[in-house]
Amino acid sequence: MMASCRLFPFLGSSWHSVPRILGWMTGSALIRGVCSKAGQKLDLKGIYPPISTPFNLKEEVDYPRLEDNLQKYSLIPFRGFVVQGSNGEYAYLTREERVEVVHRVHQAVPKEKLLLAGSGCESTQATVEMTNLMAQAGADAVLVVTPCYYRGSMTSAALIHHYTKVADVSPVPVVLYSVPGNTSLELPVDAIIVLSQHPNIIGLKDSGRDITRIALIVHKTQKQDFQVLSGSAGFLLAGYSVGAVGGICALANILGAQVCELEKLWWAGQWDEARELQYRLIEPNTAVTRKFGIPALKKAMEWFGYYGGPCRPPLLPLTDSEMKEVQRAFSASGWL
Amino acid sequence: MMASCRLFPFLGSSWHSVPRILGWMTGSALIRGVCSKAGQKLDLKGIYPPISTPFNLKEEVDYPRLEDNLQKYSLIPFRGFVVQGSNGEYAYLTREERVEVVHRVHQAVPKEKLLLAGSGCESTQATVEMTNLMAQAGADAVLVVTPCYYRGSMTSAALIHHYTKVADVSPVPVVLYSVPGNTSLELPVDAIIVLSQHPNIIGLKDSGRDITRIALIVHKTQKQDFQVLSGSAGFLLAGYSVGAVGGICALANILGAQVCELEKLWWAGQWDEARELQYRLIEPNTAVTRKFGIPALKKAMEWFGYYGGPCRPPLLPLTDSEMKEVQRAFSASGWL
Amino acid sequence: MMASCRLFPFLGSSWHSVPRILGWMTGSALIRGVCSKAGQKLDLKGIYPPISTPFNLKEEVDYPRLEDNLQKYSLIPFRGFVVQGSNGEYAYLTREERVEVVHRVHQAVPKEKLLLAGSGCESTQATVEMTNLMAQAGADAVLVVTPCYYRGSMTSAALIHHYTKVADVSPVPVVLYSVPGNTSLELPVDAIIVLSQHPNIIGLKDSGRDITRIALIVHKTQKQDFQVLSGSAGFLLAGYSVGAVGGICALANILGAQVCELEKLWWAGQWDEARELQYRLIEPNTAVTRKFGIPALKKAMEWFGYYGGPCRPPLLPLTDSEMKEVQRAFSASGWL
Amino acid sequence: MMASCRLFPFLGSSWHSVPRILGWMTGSALIRGVCSKAGQKLDLKGIYPPISTPFNLKEEVDYPRLEDNLQKYSLIPFRGFVVQGSNGEYAYLTREERVEVVHRVHQAVPKEKLLLAGSGCESTQATVEMTNLMAQAGADAVLVVTPCYYRGSMTSAALIHHYTKVADVSPVPVVLYSVPGNTSLELPVDAIIVLSQHPNIIGLKDSGRDITRIALIVHKTQKQDFQVLSGSAGFLLAGYSVGAVGGICALANILGAQVCELEKLWWAGQWDEARELQYRLIEPNTAVTRKFGIPALKKAMEWFGYYGGPCRPPLLPLTDSEMKEVQRAFSASGWL
Repeated sequence: MMASCRLFPFLGSSWHSVPRILGWMTGSALIRGVCSKAGQKLDLKGIYPPISTPFNLKEEVDYPRLEDNLQKYSLIPFRGFVVQGSNGEYAYLTREERVEVVHRVHQAVPKEKLLLAGSGCESTQATVEMTNLMAQAGADAVLVVTPCYYRGSMTSAALIHHYTKVADVSPVPVVLYSVPGNTSLELPVDAIIVLSQHPNIIGLKDSGRDITRIALIVHKTQKQDFQVLSGSAGFLLAGYSVGAVGGICALANILGAQVCELEKLWWAGQWDEARELQYRLIEPNTAVTRKFGIPALKKAMEWFGYYGGPCRPPLLPLTDSEMKEVQRAFSASGWL
Repeated sequence: MMASCRLFPFLGSSWHSVPRILGWMTGSALIRGVCSKAGQKLDLKGIYPPISTPFNLKEEVDYPRLEDNLQKYSLIPFRGFVVQGSNGEYAYLTREERVEVVHRVHQAVPKEKLLLAGSGCESTQATVEMTNLMAQAGADAVLVVTPCYYRGSMTSAALIHHYTKVADVSPVPVVLYSVPGNTSLELPVDAIIVLSQHPNIIGLKDSGRDITRIALIVHKTQKQDFQVLSGSAGFLLAGYSVGAVGGICALANILGAQVCELEKLWWAGQWDEARELQYRLIEPNTAVTRKFGIPALKKAMEWFGYYGGPCRPPLLPLTDSEMKEVQRAFSASGWL
Repeated sequence: MMASCRLFPFLGSSWHSVPRILGWMTGSALIRGVCSKAGQKLDLKGIYPPISTPFNLKEEVDYPRLEDNLQKYSLIPFRGFVVQGSNGEYAYLTREERVEVVHRVHQAVPKEKLLLAGSGCESTQATVEMTNLMAQAGADAVLVVTPCYYRGSMTSAALIHHYTKVADVSPVPVVLYSVPGNTSLELPVDAIIVLSQHPNIIGLKDSGRDITRIALIVHKTQKQDFQVLSGSAGFLLAGYSVGAVGGICALANILGAQVCELEKLWWAGQWDEARELQYRLIEPNTAVTRKFGIPALKKAMEWFGYYGGPCRPPLLPLTDSEMKEVQRAFSASGWL
Repeated sequence: MMASCRLFPFLGSSWHSVPRILGWMTGSALIRGVCSKAGQKLDLKGIYPPISTPFNLKEEVDYPRLEDNLQKYSLIPFRGFVVQGSNGEYAYLTREERVEVVHRVHQAVPKEKLLLAGSGCESTQATVEMTNLMAQAGADAVLVVTPCYYRGSMTSAALIHHYTKVADVSPVPVVLYSVPGNTSLELPVDAIIVLSQHPNIIGLKDSGRDITRIALIVHKTQKQDFQVLSGSAGFLLAGYSVGAVGGICALANILGAQVCELEKLWWAGQWDEARELQYRLIEPNTAVTRKFGIPALKKAMEWFGYYGGPCRPPLLPLTDSEMKEVQRAFSASGWL
């Protein structure tokens, strides 16, 4: 099988640890993961909600509620699910919870849906370990956020080194993740270009809001079959216009069908309809992301039939006036 | 005639100074200016180079060179010209020079080309005066940059007050101008929405790089027939995708035909070609704007047959290594 | 004893969990911790190195080397040690390593030296747990960095809630920790003022560089006997001039005696000498903090007889040219 | 006389335009200006209000009110006056007004008070011209703000070139002026160090809030007899502690005697009293500068017996709630 999928065609001497990868990998990981990059590419094209993590009133992960939400999402033509993106409050989960949530989602969703699991930690070693755990728990690929605490030292060289180490040993493909709103750090374009050449790095989620940068990244990685996903519903249409292949959109937790409709309109060439729909997604999106964050996301999920529930502290519930402002954002756009 | 163009249909009590405007305005300004907003709209749709101001070696404005450049630009299907946008080094011109440059351009370009003249100053009073001078010198509309020195006090209320005063008395339509890269101040969306209702404010040049914001502005001003122009060739395609009607692009000083080709491809629905062309404009654009600024713009103009010449100090000429980097940006994209 | 130390004199109804604290606390924690705030105050006055964590070439914590360094530090009149401030690479340690390092330091240093242990995590619950573990491991107080990943939601209200929860249950006093260079978040002054009234919150390490803010915090918390520590040797003298009582200074890992000399000169009223010494600390300090970070800190430690060793990735070793620049910073100031 | 003051002792070959200066200068400018640098140094030590510019209700400069204010200030031991610092709304004055205001102040104040006049413009040429006009109008020195509109191009090299050109030809000494709150640009330390060696550049007003930077600048320019003035009452004491020789403080327009008292306490070694006074100046200072700007400054001037009057638009008057907040800042500190 390995011969037939012609593993690692671009493999240069720098990918010294490939034998190590092969030693680790189980057959299925090989098929879905690294192999798919070289032979049957893991196609990321589509829309993903970065699902929120439901907690009960004791602030424990509420797995039945998680499964309820996934059940409801099964009616929406998502390409898959991101588990433990920023909206999943991953920073507030223990290591064991992080793995268990991925495991449960893996069991709950149909095989044809992709499961992208966040596995980024501050240290390279911890990220490697979490990546392996996520793959074992059923992730089809890992989404690796930039380490950021020592951001002054997170040069292109440091980030290239970090991601290369992780991708060298990951049993599943790696998706880079740049989210400056949370990390105050943008993964530099030059680092992305270098990393796009790694056989086990297949794409990028870019949650920065700089469309020129996204266009440039698509352009400069075209030879690598590198896939860029817009990290927000706010610039989804613009992202498509410059070559992004999909989106990981917090708003898809709430208005999943509508976000998928925008995708469909785009690919069908119905630009006017796509544009009008895009307009109506901006204010709700801003309300549940930059403006009021996860507490607003979870609250709005409830208005649309999902379980939202509390956040873990230090995230506080919305105040009444904040909640009204979130409501206005949805009603002004005709969704409530 | 005034009755037939039904001047100021949306006019509320706040536009108290309209009689003053009418008292000032000459017939032709009335036709091309305010009136066109209400009756025959001044259509901004298209591409504009924000032309650079040529200086000779004594750092004086070189009017013959200016006219030479305009002569060469006449072969390109520009909608018009922006005189004294940021790229025109307007901040380094005297009041008299600012007016004279506009006057010369007015004389040099055909009547069907729009002439947008920068008239923003720090104080409201100075902006009003410069606006009137620009209109007298032949501007079809004025482009008014946000005052910014006391940016901590430049609230939405202050900016609404400023622009309203200017628009109240301007003999020609006003285009708002937000360029945070130079001003470190973004004209707030809420202020833009209010100002879009003024009969003499017809559009916005947005040089920030936030495509979500541009989409939202187009959306929230749709009822006002408010026209948004992308302020950079870097996100021109994305701007069109969310409803911008054109662009004021520094790069059009150098690659004017190519920028206009992108416009054409967009409107013709040739998105794949448009996208490929867009990609090739990004790096050259960044090189002559954010990265190396006006000295790079002027140097690159020379490579493409235009007069660039020196900048006024404190802008310094490019160093050799900077110049090589600018060249690489053009050659890597296939333009040199 | 509780009566004699008049525990919690300012205690309002909001400190509902005090009984819970008392239930948890052992006698010695009570004496050194909460009690000391009210009766025998835990006096933070003095200089602390935020010690680096030594790793061996396998990137494991090198406990013998840690003890060697502490042995050398015992000759310097430090008030105590900060374990797992930002310079301790705490973000790269496992939970078990974090506790073990504190435990080892507790065993190695004399009783009269204060041990402040970093216990901040992203979630309130994890911070509470780590705080308890640190107290059990021997910390005299905990230093709690602001959670920051969801910084858009980290309002004053959220941060007050977070720190109050932690301080309510901590067996040892809590020191707030604001380090915007790493967290891109500044603990707001209004939150600090509220928190300073909590009987178990005794001070603040402020690593921001805004001396006006530090002065204002000292001023507004004067009635609370709240102690402010400068978070850098770069503004240590200025900090003293506005009422800070000491400093937690990365540079004290390298030039500990000199930093303590500055302290001594200040309190002795030898301002001219203090100022001249302060000047000579600025460039070395900048080199091992903002400019080149922990890799530079560890490298420079070696020049002064301490064990530095490697950092954990993604922190990279200094390049040769970086190392030379760090050397210059020390030699230009007369230290090498 | 020229021989006796040993003009330009450090003069290197780069100061090529000195003969040009000498050709221009009148005797008195020579004595008070360049000469004083080399022989009888122009001593900047002391406190200066950057005076506000009074307007009448027609928004014209109100010269009688200006003279009234100066009359009242004559009772305060100021070292001198800054005319057309940022607080003077210089950006809103015409060229003629800028000169006339300096002329009037020159006539109104006693000879022993220093008159520092703001002469910074965006272009080097305009700055040179304004500098000459200011010297002719009676300025003892000019305060030259960094040009900033093309801040991306305002490298150290560009700024060194700019200031050198200005200082080469200025008939009076030049004081550098870095005010990032208004310009979003900080004059780099390396540029300051180079410029401090120019015989006609005698000091710096630093309105950034970074005390480490101020200390470093004092340190690195000690051989040049370069004088640093704190640009705010908020860090005046800290500034003295690291070697600043005085302050140009907006708050001195309102609480001039108190700011001078802080200066006196510092030099008398009464640090505890100085510190307590410093604390009480912070909140009022913040209210009339960063928080509410010049409208608050002018309003508060009226509470203390000076003429404030309106600002020029686009600066708006304070709202009622803003005014109350400013009042609270003064009353909470015991000044109202």
